[in-house]
Amino acid sequence: MEMNSKYHKYPSRRKDFTQLQRPISHRISEHLSQSAKVIPLGGLNEVGKNMMVFEYDRDIVIIDMGLQFPDMNMPGVDYIIPDTSYLDDKKNRIRGIIITHGHLDHIGGIPYLIERLGFPPIFTAKLTAGFIKKQLEEFGLSRRVRVNIFDPDKAILRFGRMEAKFFRVNHSIPDAVGVLLKTPAGNMVHTGDFKFDETPARDQRPADLQKIAAIGAEGITALFSESTNALEKGKTMSETQIGANLEPIIANAKGRMIIASFSSLIGRIQQILDMAVKFKKKVFLSGRSMHDSVEIAHSLGYLNYPSHLVKDISSLAGTPDKDVIIMTTGSQGEEFSSLTRIADKEHQHVKIKHGDTVLISASPIIGNERAISNVINKLAKLGANIIYDRIMDVHTSGHGCQEDLKMMIDLIKPKYLIPIHGEYFMRQAHKNLGLEMGMKDENIILIENGDILEINNGRVHKSNARINLREVLIDGYGVGDVGAQILFERNQMAENGVVIVLITINKKTRKLIADPEIISRGFVLFKTSEELIESLKKEAASAYKTITKKRGDIKRGEIKHYIASQLTKITDKSLDRTPLIVPVIVEV
Amino acid sequence: MEMNSKYHKYPSRRKDFTQLQRPISHRISEHLSQSAKVIPLGGLNEVGKNMMVFEYDRDIVIIDMGLQFPDMNMPGVDYIIPDTSYLDDKKNRIRGIIITHGHLDHIGGIPYLIERLGFPPIFTAKLTAGFIKKQLEEFGLSRRVRVNIFDPDKAILRFGRMEAKFFRVNHSIPDAVGVLLKTPAGNMVHTGDFKFDETPARDQRPADLQKIAAIGAEGITALFSESTNALEKGKTMSETQIGANLEPIIANAKGRMIIASFSSLIGRIQQILDMAVKFKKKVFLSGRSMHDSVEIAHSLGYLNYPSHLVKDISSLAGTPDKDVIIMTTGSQGEEFSSLTRIADKEHQHVKIKHGDTVLISASPIIGNERAISNVINKLAKLGANIIYDRIMDVHTSGHGCQEDLKMMIDLIKPKYLIPIHGEYFMRQAHKNLGLEMGMKDENIILIENGDILEINNGRVHKSNARINLREVLIDGYGVGDVGAQILFERNQMAENGVVIVLITINKKTRKLIADPEIISRGFVLFKTSEELIESLKKEAASAYKTITKKRGDIKRGEIKHYIASQLTKITDKSLDRTPLIVPVIVEV
Repeated sequence: MEMNSKYHKYPSRRKDFTQLQRPISHRISEHLSQSAKVIPLGGLNEVGKNMMVFEYDRDIVIIDMGLQFPDMNMPGVDYIIPDTSYLDDKKNRIRGIIITHGHLDHIGGIPYLIERLGFPPIFTAKLTAGFIKKQLEEFGLSRRVRVNIFDPDKAILRFGRMEAKFFRVNHSIPDAVGVLLKTPAGNMVHTGDFKFDETPARDQRPADLQKIAAIGAEGITALFSESTNALEKGKTMSETQIGANLEPIIANAKGRMIIASFSSLIGRIQQILDMAVKFKKKVFLSGRSMHDSVEIAHSLGYLNYPSHLVKDISSLAGTPDKDVIIMTTGSQGEEFSSLTRIADKEHQHVKIKHGDTVLISASPIIGNERAISNVINKLAKLGANIIYDRIMDVHTSGHGCQEDLKMMIDLIKPKYLIPIHGEYFMRQAHKNLGLEMGMKDENIILIENGDILEINNGRVHKSNARINLREVLIDGYGVGDVGAQILFERNQMAENGVVIVLITINKKTRKLIADPEIISRGFVLFKTSEELIESLKKEAASAYKTITKKRGDIKRGEIKHYIASQLTKITDKSLDRTPLIVPVIVEV
Repeated sequence: MEMNSKYHKYPSRRKDFTQLQRPISHRISEHLSQSAKVIPLGGLNEVGKNMMVFEYDRDIVIIDMGLQFPDMNMPGVDYIIPDTSYLDDKKNRIRGIIITHGHLDHIGGIPYLIERLGFPPIFTAKLTAGFIKKQLEEFGLSRRVRVNIFDPDKAILRFGRMEAKFFRVNHSIPDAVGVLLKTPAGNMVHTGDFKFDETPARDQRPADLQKIAAIGAEGITALFSESTNALEKGKTMSETQIGANLEPIIANAKGRMIIASFSSLIGRIQQILDMAVKFKKKVFLSGRSMHDSVEIAHSLGYLNYPSHLVKDISSLAGTPDKDVIIMTTGSQGEEFSSLTRIADKEHQHVKIKHGDTVLISASPIIGNERAISNVINKLAKLGANIIYDRIMDVHTSGHGCQEDLKMMIDLIKPKYLIPIHGEYFMRQAHKNLGLEMGMKDENIILIENGDILEINNGRVHKSNARINLREVLIDGYGVGDVGAQILFERNQMAENGVVIVLITINKKTRKLIADPEIISRGFVLFKTSEELIESLKKEAASAYKTITKKRGDIKRGEIKHYIASQLTKITDKSLDRTPLIVPVIVEV
């Protein structure tokens, strides 16, 4: 347990932080208010893009700033980030951003949003800071953002008239913390993502139950507690139980072991590295995030191993199969991940052969099931033996199940419970747990992104006002330039293709001077559909004549709209398809 | 158990069938062979489009003819059906099609394929025939296809030199059968989809274990057994256990019950109807397939209820909430299903209100998890209480788990086991069960669609030859007109949109006579991307000049390709996006 002592080495940085805080320009507000406000900008209608705004008087503290992965209805979209336009005129009131842990749904929004927010300082624990700094480096923002590290056991931070303390929780990444935010209007606790693990891997200590209990004893008005696993009965399985399950698999592997897991699941990686030492195997890393994550955790002392143990996958050749463990990304079947490339026979260094064991030490995030099954299928066909969560317990969640959630409520004993993080039905299930524990219905409040919670003299209520939020989509380098209209067009073209109708007219007479041309993509094969194409051409000509004969002053947009609607009738009738029809009028 | 006796009412139709068989034109083959061949045309690389060809000498029997639902990589595609081109020159040898049960992955290919196969006769059990006939009606094919009904308990059918007998199994639809196919080269058993349920709902009797054992005792060379649940431990839960779990929910519902399930799960529907009678409620049907299915099963005696009990959803108004059970389609979150319309507030007759209980009596098929979660979320937000498989056991599978599969192997005691139905990793898991039971590795054969199995003097082996199969895609009314190129274009447009580049040139000089125009869909918002559009226009002009200057005789295709590649460089660099670029050259 050598890792445990490291926390005590860090002095409290309280003083430093006080200096780091930005000057508070308006200490006396025009509208001094006794009530605190809490506004979720993300994380309440989805799993992902967690971001909550806490306001008291002129002071604003933000907890987390994550991104979300899009679902199938958003083709081409890479990420979704929170809409922070509410904060546009409040930049100088933001005292700081607290980050609870280093997962992308809590830190991934930072590089996209921090400039727009006026570069407020970030406060977080050490490993989380490591992950944030890596991100900022990639975006060329390192020098412009202050990332301040606190010791969660000791730190007390002041953000204007609010004060923050922290408590260690367990999660599927080390250094996850919960936050106590004290305001004159009431004390609030934000759990971050958490579970309780009395026997974590050696990357973590058990959650600090005594401190959580003490914080509860201070009197908590509102507990904002995460809900991801609120539908799962029992208590989340311990990380070291997973280690115990994996050990015989690794010990007995006669061929290569290929293990896919989350790159930030340092406890899992630590246990596998320890087994590699025990059974005299070598570990080869594959996949960029696996490299980054191991390097960050290793350099900061969260991952411990003899330096010769871990190598890059490029030096795989020459090691006997029985001594090989490959740690790879791709446990969610992600398109370009290392495991998917292995399954597609496109990995530069790893070709599957009989005797290989592929261990997927993860479970699917909702929506990834199909992609994972495809990868498993391909690997199985190539001759690998596949072990994954449907076969045995090779993964445990980082999120607390029902007993963990109830334990948190019991430790904090809040007046109000606000279930956060997760889709509505998960938060509703969390509410039911609170009801089972005897809380009153009106004291458990379900809120949505953009809702405004008011905390006033120990009472909490949802305001009638709310903030309208849009989804900010990231596609390649574009932030927010893809919206509903673009997605509508993409989905229509995905389903039915596009048909371009080229109409050439005389500039003066406005009469057709050639037959319309039809060009299509993703619609039908041209050579087998000549008849259909001919009828589309004829209809385009006739539609143009009809609509321009009616009125001389008709607008281009109207002409195009009419032609498209006429051609849609034909494709719908003959093929039951409605491609996106794009009439193009060329004047000569 | 009044349903049980109905089977005995049907006389054996053996005589009729003999007459129904088509004349066998070539009794003496040029290439008389002692070996039988089995060729799967579908169902072996996927869950869906099950279809297997059994050949002996000049005789061919087909078992099942299903369709498959496409996955996310096939936008716009409705279904995938088996490629039957192998049979094109063998039409007159097809003696019949045996259908094991009435699910779409076993019957859905019939309307699309039966004509191409020369309308061979279909042989199946009574309810399955009902579902097939309904399908044929919708396609206007009723009069052209002979659907012959057999009694699985008694029928013995001859197909040239092959003979078929049947045995009842349990499944999530009544009248599911397995098939014994006797050939001089060896006896084969095809299980269809099955589980063993000693206490099924009253739509079914338990599988006929004595007959299966007797068939096994005849000596079986090859057992083709389904693999869908080969990864699930234990024995599949009984249908009546689900009924017992649902009863208190329905009994105690104070508001409306909205129950989504599979429309063909007659046993589930029967149990719910029985509870409706018991608790004095009315049942309202919503969704076309629910109506069709209930009507077919009711008219054929597989579903029994007092006639006043069941009504259409349009007559919902006026019934007190506590007396309402709505049976609906949409348990998989399907886009236009009744439950999805309810969740989207678009259902004409059902608006969710507080007090409603939505029971999803189904479990997700791989790939549908995200869609189902979305529906659950929306329903929960509207105030419904949602009960589904993650909360309690409200569904059981129609497929046998590991203990069922082992029991089948043990009853049949085949020389060879050929795991069928399901993705590779499921069939591999099935193989592992056979190995655990002591079968030899070489006696369990994993095959793919298009492989040729040869059965010869009691020995089975996979031929080195195989049949190349393509995927036949159905999009609207088009069968097979959407192929790889179209899907590639659709996927590219879905991810990145389309950019149309209009280049107008002088017919004689071939010089540009206007600036190129750019029209895009699904790419970027025009008004916020003027700069990019301008640079695309400039590059299009310059690319046209460059490529035509090089060679005077350059082909149109080459010009377009060059322009597209140059513009892709710009979009890739500036936005990290690669839209489908369609240059259009207009000659004036």
